[in-house]
Amino acid sequence: MEQIVYCGKKIKSRSKFIPKGGHRCFHLAGHEGRCHEFPYLVHLNKEAPRIEKKIIRDSTMTTGASWKSEDAGPNRIRRWVMLLSDKQLGKLGVNISKLKPVVVSKLREKAATYEACMDVAKKLTWLAYGVAGCPLPPDPIRQYLEKLFGPIIAGSTTCLVCKGPLDYTDFAKAQRGKALIETSHSNPRLHTPDNVGFAHRDCNIAQGNKTLDEFYTWVADILRRTGRTVT
Amino acid sequence: MEQIVYCGKKIKSRSKFIPKGGHRCFHLAGHEGRCHEFPYLVHLNKEAPRIEKKIIRDSTMTTGASWKSEDAGPNRIRRWVMLLSDKQLGKLGVNISKLKPVVVSKLREKAATYEACMDVAKKLTWLAYGVAGCPLPPDPIRQYLEKLFGPIIAGSTTCLVCKGPLDYTDFAKAQRGKALIETSHSNPRLHTPDNVGFAHRDCNIAQGNKTLDEFYTWVADILRRTGRTVT
Repeated sequence: MEQIVYCGKKIKSRSKFIPKGGHRCFHLAGHEGRCHEFPYLVHLNKEAPRIEKKIIRDSTMTTGASWKSEDAGPNRIRRWVMLLSDKQLGKLGVNISKLKPVVVSKLREKAATYEACMDVAKKLTWLAYGVAGCPLPPDPIRQYLEKLFGPIIAGSTTCLVCKGPLDYTDFAKAQRGKALIETSHSNPRLHTPDNVGFAHRDCNIAQGNKTLDEFYTWVADILRRTGRTVT
Repeated sequence: MEQIVYCGKKIKSRSKFIPKGGHRCFHLAGHEGRCHEFPYLVHLNKEAPRIEKKIIRDSTMTTGASWKSEDAGPNRIRRWVMLLSDKQLGKLGVNISKLKPVVVSKLREKAATYEACMDVAKKLTWLAYGVAGCPLPPDPIRQYLEKLFGPIIAGSTTCLVCKGPLDYTDFAKAQRGKALIETSHSNPRLHTPDNVGFAHRDCNIAQGNKTLDEFYTWVADILRRTGRTVT
C-alpha cells in the first residue's frame, strides 16, 4: 500500500471501546471540511448504505459465525478490543472467564489493531467499487482509493474463493446473518488489506477456517479420491 | 434392500407425534422376547450410546443447522410430522404460520415417512459398524444388518463427501451441535438409505445444500478457475 499522509486528528467517540491513540480522521492531510473516520465511504453511504455499513462492521468487528446462542457471549465486538488482556477487558465490562474457551479462542483469533481495521475498510471499499454494477465513486474518492490500491476497474472484483462474478444486486442487499455475499479472508486468521475480499456465502462457508491454499488443496484431494480429474 | 419380514407389532408411545400406523417393532417376524423399534441398536446402546442416540436422532428428526436462534422455531421435530398439512400441524400444537418462511421450507425439505426413517436408521447402524475401530456387532445383529445391506467390513465406511477415513474415537463422542462426524446425505433433500452416510463436519458443511455431484462439479470449477489441475 502506498504511504499517504492522513489528517490523523482524533475524533470523539462515546464508545467505551476506543482504540489506543483514539479514533482518527482518515481524510488526506490538509483536507477541507470536517474530519471523518471513513471519508471514502460517504458516497456508498448514499448509494448503497448497506454496503457501507457492512464494510465498517466487517472491518472493525469480530464475526459471530456459528456461535450465536445465548451462552456464546458477545459475538460482535471491536477487533482491537480483543488485543487487550483478560484483566483490561474485565475493566471494560467484558468478562472473558464467563465465555466458553472455544468462543474466547475465536474472538482472540479475530483480533486486529485499529490501524489494520482501518486499512481493511479502505481495501473493502476499493473492492466494492470493483464489483460489476456498483456505481463508480466521485473523483476525490476514486483518487484516494486508487492511490492506495491501484485502478478501480468495474468487474475486477470477483469472489475471493471461487473467482466467479459477484452479483451487485445481492451485494447491495448486504445484511447481517444470511447475507449472500460475505467478507472473506484468504487466511482467516489475518485481518489485513492483502488478505481480505468478498465471497459468495456458500464459498466462504465451504472454505471455513482453512486458508485459501489449504482449501484448494483439500478439495483437490477430495476430487482425486473420488476419481475425478480437473484439467 | 432385501425384503425381510418384520414383526410389525405396534409399540406404545406417549408422544403426540406418532406416525401413521404407529411406532412398530422391527425385530424379525417370529422373534423371541420383547418388541423393539430399534432391535439392531441394542449393542451400540451399550458399547457406544452416543452413536446409538445419534443414529436414532438423525434418522428420525429434522436437523437444526444454522437456524438455532430463538425465533427460528423448533429446530428438531420428527421428520414424518413435517409431512402433515399446516392445519394438521396446528392441531398438534405446531403453529407453522408463526415460523419464518425459510425455516418452514427447511423443515419441509427434511420431511420423510416413518418407514424411510426406520430404513435410514438401519443403514446408519450398518455404516457405523463399518467405521474402523467400531466394535463388531453380535451375530444376530450382524446377520440382520448384512441381510439388508451386505457384509459389514471394518474400515469400509469412509466420509461420504471426501471418502477419507472416519475416526472412531471422534465418532463415539458423537454429540449434538459441534459433532466432528455428522450424518450426511448425497442429496440433502432425500432421506433414504441409499442416500445417507457419515461425513466429517467440515466436509458436510462445505457440501451444504448441494448434492454430492453438484458439490464435486462446483469445486472442480473453482479449481479450474484458479488455474489448478487435479490429475
